[in-house]
Amino acid sequence: MHIAVLQNQPHIGAVDANLAAVQSAVEDVAFDLLVLPELFATGYFFHDQSQVRRLGEQVPDGLTTRFLMELAATKKALVCGGLVEREGDRFYNSAVLVGPEGFIGCYRKLHLFYEEKLWFAPGDRPLEVYDWGTARIGMMVCYDWRFPEVARVLALKGAQVLLHPTNLVQPYCQDAMITRCLENRVFAVTANRVGSDTKPDGSSLTFTGRSQVVSPRGEVLCRTNVDDETVLTVDIDPGEADDKLVTEHNHLLSDRRPEYYDPVTGKQL
Amino acid sequence: MHIAVLQNQPHIGAVDANLAAVQSAVEDVAFDLLVLPELFATGYFFHDQSQVRRLGEQVPDGLTTRFLMELAATKKALVCGGLVEREGDRFYNSAVLVGPEGFIGCYRKLHLFYEEKLWFAPGDRPLEVYDWGTARIGMMVCYDWRFPEVARVLALKGAQVLLHPTNLVQPYCQDAMITRCLENRVFAVTANRVGSDTKPDGSSLTFTGRSQVVSPRGEVLCRTNVDDETVLTVDIDPGEADDKLVTEHNHLLSDRRPEYYDPVTGKQL
Repeated sequence: MHIAVLQNQPHIGAVDANLAAVQSAVEDVAFDLLVLPELFATGYFFHDQSQVRRLGEQVPDGLTTRFLMELAATKKALVCGGLVEREGDRFYNSAVLVGPEGFIGCYRKLHLFYEEKLWFAPGDRPLEVYDWGTARIGMMVCYDWRFPEVARVLALKGAQVLLHPTNLVQPYCQDAMITRCLENRVFAVTANRVGSDTKPDGSSLTFTGRSQVVSPRGEVLCRTNVDDETVLTVDIDPGEADDKLVTEHNHLLSDRRPEYYDPVTGKQL
Repeated sequence: MHIAVLQNQPHIGAVDANLAAVQSAVEDVAFDLLVLPELFATGYFFHDQSQVRRLGEQVPDGLTTRFLMELAATKKALVCGGLVEREGDRFYNSAVLVGPEGFIGCYRKLHLFYEEKLWFAPGDRPLEVYDWGTARIGMMVCYDWRFPEVARVLALKGAQVLLHPTNLVQPYCQDAMITRCLENRVFAVTANRVGSDTKPDGSSLTFTGRSQVVSPRGEVLCRTNVDDETVLTVDIDPGEADDKLVTEHNHLLSDRRPEYYDPVTGKQL
């Protein structure tokens, strides 16, 4: 499976220009699966709720999901990226997965970071794994990295490859994803952005780049730097994630002791 | 709180000599809390069940726990280390915590690694946190690192400092413990051994050293190398682990979404 990871620098609110930049960046790149950053077409550090409202889109009928579906159809590939999802009066920080035949699934970020809590509702749907034949795929978004339960639940549901759109502003996640891969024996594809978002009041956030793909054995298969707009590509065999035997005596998931994992009752989680 | 971490090289089965070496190594070291490796007085790579049976000790009445209690009384400190615990016909890979007034608690390793499964019964008691006034302490042993649930449960039960006796043979744990600290905002004290254990059949295991103390913000406060017998010391303030605010909007534990963490039912873990 040929994976591409796009690291971009969107301009806040400039959806058309940001989508065109993505289109251009992947024009000559072949892939079976493309992962784009969180909120890749809108920018991240929103000014107010009215801006979020203006940028919110229905899934799968909105502009960004349709763009991704067209790209997937053209490339005959899976594509995943993050967007502002609108449903009625609620907004979610979501990631969508689409394929050559159209929409596959949408994940609403469970763990909101910083001012996202001002604009978005927290995710309200279970973590899902999509069996695409060539790979069983789970999605998580950015700050979900800090909660080991997310990757764990996806792995227990059978995910081989975690797609991980991000807009990281702290330096920890990239190395922590190595731990996520080791503790679950899965691949993780982290697509981050670069540059800064600055608000009219002068406050700003700078993003940490270093998009990467990590193997089930914790190898960083590729990682870019902190400031380039770029597309990384790498070949993986998702089936490698099915080998959970750490030693001949140790199966990573069967070795779990869930009856001891509930801090409150001591009962099974 | 002045913490000491001992990295030793026990000789398999030579308990008296191994205890004497520990005694000598910490003779001139002051500490409030000392952490010793897993199976620090027996060695690790056992030849057969009869050897394990011979080395097994009751807790707290056995030789090694009594040694640790004497050391704790002399140093007016807490001491934690790993041993072969015998209870009836069952053997556990355990860690004990003792203080100046005697025995405090015993943790039976929940996740056994490799041939440990031939000799030991898996842990059969809940993860516990011991409130010592100066610090709330949890214990985990070696391969438990690979199961994020262990550190998580201890953190949810209020642990500020994770004591982590190890006999690591793989290279991953030391960096993964940085993730454990970041995802729980706790301190982790990993005491590993060095050298090799070789069986009569010539098979051997080599241990990876690099004992360390990591802060709740993922800083490696100290880390030794891969081959020295040594004692590391560092001062920590366990209270730093009580600050779970990652941002003004993000409390690391309150932000959890346990209703989405059960892979089977989607109900609360």
